[in-house]
Amino acid sequence: MLLAELSIWPMDKGESVSVYVARCVEIIDQSGLAYQLGPLGTTIEGEWRQVMDVVNRCFEVLEKDCNRIAASLKMDWRRGRVHGIEQKLRSVREKMSHKPS
Amino acid sequence: MLLAELSIWPMDKGESVSVYVARCVEIIDQSGLAYQLGPLGTTIEGEWRQVMDVVNRCFEVLEKDCNRIAASLKMDWRRGRVHGIEQKLRSVREKMSHKPS
Amino acid sequence: MLLAELSIWPMDKGESVSVYVARCVEIIDQSGLAYQLGPLGTTIEGEWRQVMDVVNRCFEVLEKDCNRIAASLKMDWRRGRVHGIEQKLRSVREKMSHKPS
Amino acid sequence: MLLAELSIWPMDKGESVSVYVARCVEIIDQSGLAYQLGPLGTTIEGEWRQVMDVVNRCFEVLEKDCNRIAASLKMDWRRGRVHGIEQKLRSVREKMSHKPS
Repeated sequence: MLLAELSIWPMDKGESVSVYVARCVEIIDQSGLAYQLGPLGTTIEGEWRQVMDVVNRCFEVLEKDCNRIAASLKMDWRRGRVHGIEQKLRSVREKMSHKPS
Repeated sequence: MLLAELSIWPMDKGESVSVYVARCVEIIDQSGLAYQLGPLGTTIEGEWRQVMDVVNRCFEVLEKDCNRIAASLKMDWRRGRVHGIEQKLRSVREKMSHKPS
Repeated sequence: MLLAELSIWPMDKGESVSVYVARCVEIIDQSGLAYQLGPLGTTIEGEWRQVMDVVNRCFEVLEKDCNRIAASLKMDWRRGRVHGIEQKLRSVREKMSHKPS
Repeated sequence: MLLAELSIWPMDKGESVSVYVARCVEIIDQSGLAYQLGPLGTTIEGEWRQVMDVVNRCFEVLEKDCNRIAASLKMDWRRGRVHGIEQKLRSVREKMSHKPS
């Protein structure tokens, strides 16, 4: 399963782009895949092709009215992984000698 | 204020690297800066120099016993921003027409 | 047209991964799209879907014998852009007051 | 030695940002470190602290007149590496069964 963190935003709409980001998060939400919103990107979990299809749809919803779009995708694929979002967070927390409060 | 998402891990320790990631999250936790753990990186909030100092310390704690280290840093700096982690998440959620459950 | 810089490598094959990187560069080379090798990634130029198809094929050629794969994609799409790789490099060089030798 | 690919640009200056990128490339050029311009970022080679100091100076030259700055840094540190920019490109090219022309 793939964990992919997507950041995507228009570069031609000024410095406040959360309206455009929200469009993409709606597409991710409606995809049915597990995901987690973060301050600098949204992590999506699924099979490689499923996730890439969602990324393509996010691009298409911005392409309609944007002339320049920046995006980044950070990906970690692991064979046989399930529940990766929770498992990765738990795995790091368990190994800390001083737990964050 | 800067929001910077850090991913850092050794490339010479096999495919399970959460012990090393946990070392870095402890350094971030002890820095006193606001931060948020994510499945593919940890977002740190602070003045540019404060955040970069924490990133340097994360490198130093891995450099001790690792021979190859990969890292990525995604940064969004905005003059005058405060409480950026919460504010960015809230800003996107407010603009979604269908709120995620 | 999209400019997308792809970095992709296995995380379960030790610290020397250039054999696997070379497999992906061959796929990119055979795609017929314009591209440029860099020290930390390969930039591919094409329509969004064309580039994403090449990225998917790079994943598939690693998935055959790797159990964990890391990747990152940095993307800059601009409506109507042609010859983006050369044009972007030229545009920066022209604006430098002291030209690099 | 560290190889770090830096992308940095203002988000509040419209969609054409090469003037600002050129400022940063001048700082990198004057640092005396080895570097390579790419279409989506500039790769800098040096000791960790040397490279991070250059990155900090790039931020400072944009901070003067920009209110929002986006940046990304992709890093690959390897103990004992020298001439990393050339060596990495050569290493991939040598392993390709069909050499790009």
